[in-house]
Amino acid sequence: MDKKEIIKSRLLELEKLQPELYGKDFLLTWENSLDNLKAIMAVAEILQSLHWEKKPFRIFDYGLAVSIFRDNSTRTRFSFASAVNALGLALAELDEVKSQIAHGETVRETANMISFLTEVIGIRDDMYPGEGHSYMLEVAEAVNDGFQNRVLAQRPMILNLQSDLDHPTQCLADLLKLKSYFGDLNQLKGKKIAMSWAYSPSYGKPLSVPQGIINLMSRFGMEVVLAYPEGYDLLPETVNSAQAFAEQSGGSFRITHSMTDAFTDADVVYPKSWAPMTVMQERTRLLKEGNLQALQALEKQCLAENARHQDWECTEEMMKLTRNGNALYEHCLPADISGVSCPKGEVAKSVFERYRIHTYQEAGYKPFVIAAMIFLSKIKNPLSHLKSLNTLEQ
Amino acid sequence: MDKKEIIKSRLLELEKLQPELYGKDFLLTWENSLDNLKAIMAVAEILQSLHWEKKPFRIFDYGLAVSIFRDNSTRTRFSFASAVNALGLALAELDEVKSQIAHGETVRETANMISFLTEVIGIRDDMYPGEGHSYMLEVAEAVNDGFQNRVLAQRPMILNLQSDLDHPTQCLADLLKLKSYFGDLNQLKGKKIAMSWAYSPSYGKPLSVPQGIINLMSRFGMEVVLAYPEGYDLLPETVNSAQAFAEQSGGSFRITHSMTDAFTDADVVYPKSWAPMTVMQERTRLLKEGNLQALQALEKQCLAENARHQDWECTEEMMKLTRNGNALYEHCLPADISGVSCPKGEVAKSVFERYRIHTYQEAGYKPFVIAAMIFLSKIKNPLSHLKSLNTLEQ
Amino acid sequence: MDKKEIIKSRLLELEKLQPELYGKDFLLTWENSLDNLKAIMAVAEILQSLHWEKKPFRIFDYGLAVSIFRDNSTRTRFSFASAVNALGLALAELDEVKSQIAHGETVRETANMISFLTEVIGIRDDMYPGEGHSYMLEVAEAVNDGFQNRVLAQRPMILNLQSDLDHPTQCLADLLKLKSYFGDLNQLKGKKIAMSWAYSPSYGKPLSVPQGIINLMSRFGMEVVLAYPEGYDLLPETVNSAQAFAEQSGGSFRITHSMTDAFTDADVVYPKSWAPMTVMQERTRLLKEGNLQALQALEKQCLAENARHQDWECTEEMMKLTRNGNALYEHCLPADISGVSCPKGEVAKSVFERYRIHTYQEAGYKPFVIAAMIFLSKIKNPLSHLKSLNTLEQ
Repeated sequence: MDKKEIIKSRLLELEKLQPELYGKDFLLTWENSLDNLKAIMAVAEILQSLHWEKKPFRIFDYGLAVSIFRDNSTRTRFSFASAVNALGLALAELDEVKSQIAHGETVRETANMISFLTEVIGIRDDMYPGEGHSYMLEVAEAVNDGFQNRVLAQRPMILNLQSDLDHPTQCLADLLKLKSYFGDLNQLKGKKIAMSWAYSPSYGKPLSVPQGIINLMSRFGMEVVLAYPEGYDLLPETVNSAQAFAEQSGGSFRITHSMTDAFTDADVVYPKSWAPMTVMQERTRLLKEGNLQALQALEKQCLAENARHQDWECTEEMMKLTRNGNALYEHCLPADISGVSCPKGEVAKSVFERYRIHTYQEAGYKPFVIAAMIFLSKIKNPLSHLKSLNTLEQ
Repeated sequence: MDKKEIIKSRLLELEKLQPELYGKDFLLTWENSLDNLKAIMAVAEILQSLHWEKKPFRIFDYGLAVSIFRDNSTRTRFSFASAVNALGLALAELDEVKSQIAHGETVRETANMISFLTEVIGIRDDMYPGEGHSYMLEVAEAVNDGFQNRVLAQRPMILNLQSDLDHPTQCLADLLKLKSYFGDLNQLKGKKIAMSWAYSPSYGKPLSVPQGIINLMSRFGMEVVLAYPEGYDLLPETVNSAQAFAEQSGGSFRITHSMTDAFTDADVVYPKSWAPMTVMQERTRLLKEGNLQALQALEKQCLAENARHQDWECTEEMMKLTRNGNALYEHCLPADISGVSCPKGEVAKSVFERYRIHTYQEAGYKPFVIAAMIFLSKIKNPLSHLKSLNTLEQ
Repeated sequence: MDKKEIIKSRLLELEKLQPELYGKDFLLTWENSLDNLKAIMAVAEILQSLHWEKKPFRIFDYGLAVSIFRDNSTRTRFSFASAVNALGLALAELDEVKSQIAHGETVRETANMISFLTEVIGIRDDMYPGEGHSYMLEVAEAVNDGFQNRVLAQRPMILNLQSDLDHPTQCLADLLKLKSYFGDLNQLKGKKIAMSWAYSPSYGKPLSVPQGIINLMSRFGMEVVLAYPEGYDLLPETVNSAQAFAEQSGGSFRITHSMTDAFTDADVVYPKSWAPMTVMQERTRLLKEGNLQALQALEKQCLAENARHQDWECTEEMMKLTRNGNALYEHCLPADISGVSCPKGEVAKSVFERYRIHTYQEAGYKPFVIAAMIFLSKIKNPLSHLKSLNTLEQ
């Protein structure tokens, strides 16, 4: 489909949906209706296609987009920067080292102080189980308070750029890739996706991607298999909700401790490393205590434990197990590629290379997912607005 | 008053004023005529109301706003970022660690090199008595030189975002809060404001806020009482000028070493910690010498001295002394709140909580004060320009 | 000439040129035709004059300009920030400390991930012989790949903000100063320029400026004399190409180890420090090894070697040797000024002071050279576009 046709088709999709995103934050896919998720995807594709057609889609005359990154980021940082720029906002990064946030200020106060002309606050806080999502809720509550008390002329939308629970902008980009690859969301019904742990020589990778994937793909009738070595559990509530979603959608969800089992006949594989939940929790506890010695011991022990599972690699042999030997490989990037970024990692070089462009395109949806989330939170009549943008002469 | 009425009323105020701000820097309130200050406040309220009415007030097609922060800042940084964005400029922060400024370059050279397409340079340099203001003058001189010699097509305005002497954007925001709270600048005549030192477990807080407050409020006929424990003196010239302003305006100014004295029958209280001038001077000397050992000793001694004055706290008991027990509490934020940000601080939790929204609104004027200062320095006919903005259809 | 006349005259110049810059990167002047270089200069002067005439020249509705600075920078950073802002782009700095680039990611991947809505990538990577230019080529290759594979809707232009080989935005600014000072590029024929090493108490200054100068000025018929103490050689291929250019243009190129020889009868002098190529290469090797001890020894040895050449200073006596004693002094700034930025440096205080405004104006071309390079890479019909900009009513 060329871009003009995509716009036409997605506008038709949007007509049938009843999203309730106006004035809302976006924190977790699993708090959102299917219509909300489908609307975000449709709008993301429309905005992306407008970009390819060189039609601007600015919606703000001025205003700030604030980003708060409590973990390093390149991809998500640039996706957010691109999205807010295209919508007409200037990016202002709240650097908590530069700022006074760590010196006894309340979150409530700071959240209001940075929001006088702010339309959106994007937050990445993914390292500490039990912390990231609740921090986002706290910021949301703070700007509610400021808006209701007429401190703020507008209530900034809070946007989850990766929390301890979910990574919705990434997972919706992953899902958009599936939509485009298989032609249609309906095509996903009955397709098997293997969300699998994979070996990496690193330590402390967040759980938000696997948690997000099992809770998102399970809503579209997919057969979701979560695979990991014993001990690398996700947060139990996210596993429970994935189970429930699978039942609702007519798909399925199960956990296995065999990568082979997960890959067999899979239509999609998503092999990615993460730290065991218990390690992340212990790490959080030790960080708060400031117990550096114990932290180093934990890292050493964790890396040793990881090293016992070096066979959890997405090799050519593993790929041969998948449906017709050519399942789609997904990754949120950067992948740990064996022999490229590390001696032994998540994926074999030849496998990654074969799917490389697919993973780039997958990532390419992210700026537009972010833009769509903001767009739908800020524009009361998105359909008519998008139609008018599309007919604009350049 | 709703926002439309505020615009109408402030345009009328502006008609009666003869500000001389076009092409000027803004460094100290006390260098400026009353008309200048009133015009800044009126324009700030108009711009704020335009923002609430969702009417843009961009004045630049392109150009940079450079900020130079020689001290950490969240609030002022975001206020400046918001203001310049709304006016149409892109923010470029001169990070003196990243840049080469510290390595033997002259200020003159750097000031010109960052100014080829720059409309405003905002500077925060508040830590060293005798340094901040003179640095701003040096930068102003440098861009004068560049502009006169046709190095620069436009002369960037220099804007004081906090110096060793004054913090004009903060103090004018504080004054705007009083204007709005009491209904009118004329209502301030005869009202008592207690600018009082308060205990904080921190060290090295700048003097610019108390110095700015006593020199600004004294110009509007207020009874200004400056209170602090013996030894916590401000810079003598700022005390002298406050005295003179009080005499001119028909208000009064006096110093007391009793917080009780200051609070009794006060209409407004501004309890805030600062370091003694002599400590700041000694600290500057030792920093220049690189004498880290003496610096640590000074900090220790200073904190011990502070700790002797833990009773300088804005408690409920202290508030009861004020006019009808309900003086307006002001603070530049973040406040050191007892039991919240520190075990014992400047203000009791319940007092702060009661005035919290007031302090947020007080801070909310700052972006618009900054925008008004730039606006009045750049727009030759502010009144007609604002009238045309206001009648713009969205 | 006033600015309106400059615009008229440069539009006429542009009419006679056939630049082939549309869709191209700009990495090295010596890869570019004379028409390309002349077109960049003409457009830079037009854009600068439009700026002085307060006529905007925005060409983008939205989009990012990414900068990657692998070395500290104030001037070039602000020049790039100004240029892209005036063209309508938002700056996004890729900070390799903040980002994950250093942790095993491939350049190819990152280059695409930051480019989904990116129009230009400006790179400064000048510290390691054999590295900077090849890194830029790698990034260029990466975005080619992404563009061809429909990962990217547009191919970002790659712009050299200083490499191990060339510093084209600086050197074209230097040349524009000569064009303006002597009235015309044709006036440069037969004029002598002394590109001379000069003493500095610093270590590890890149070679790109002298390499860029000898390869640029030699193309305009100048008599280029490169002077340095024995051992401070430039990269041999850049010396060879300068030789060839001189022959083609009817100018000349020679190397001398006497500053006196170089300055005698010079029309232009460019005294500037750099590190010997061999030291830079050794330094790169040791940095890669992580051999800190050897690095310190190298620095010490290098500074000692430098110190043997403190007489390589641009003094009043040296200036008297030049044509009529008043050659134009050029420098890329910041200069190491004796008695100002260091006890003994590249240039005497009185010499620098006499030419200070000239060096500022020289630097003032840089934002417009950058803007012109982007403009010519992005606009298919630059001449008609510029004509329409110029006739725009404000």
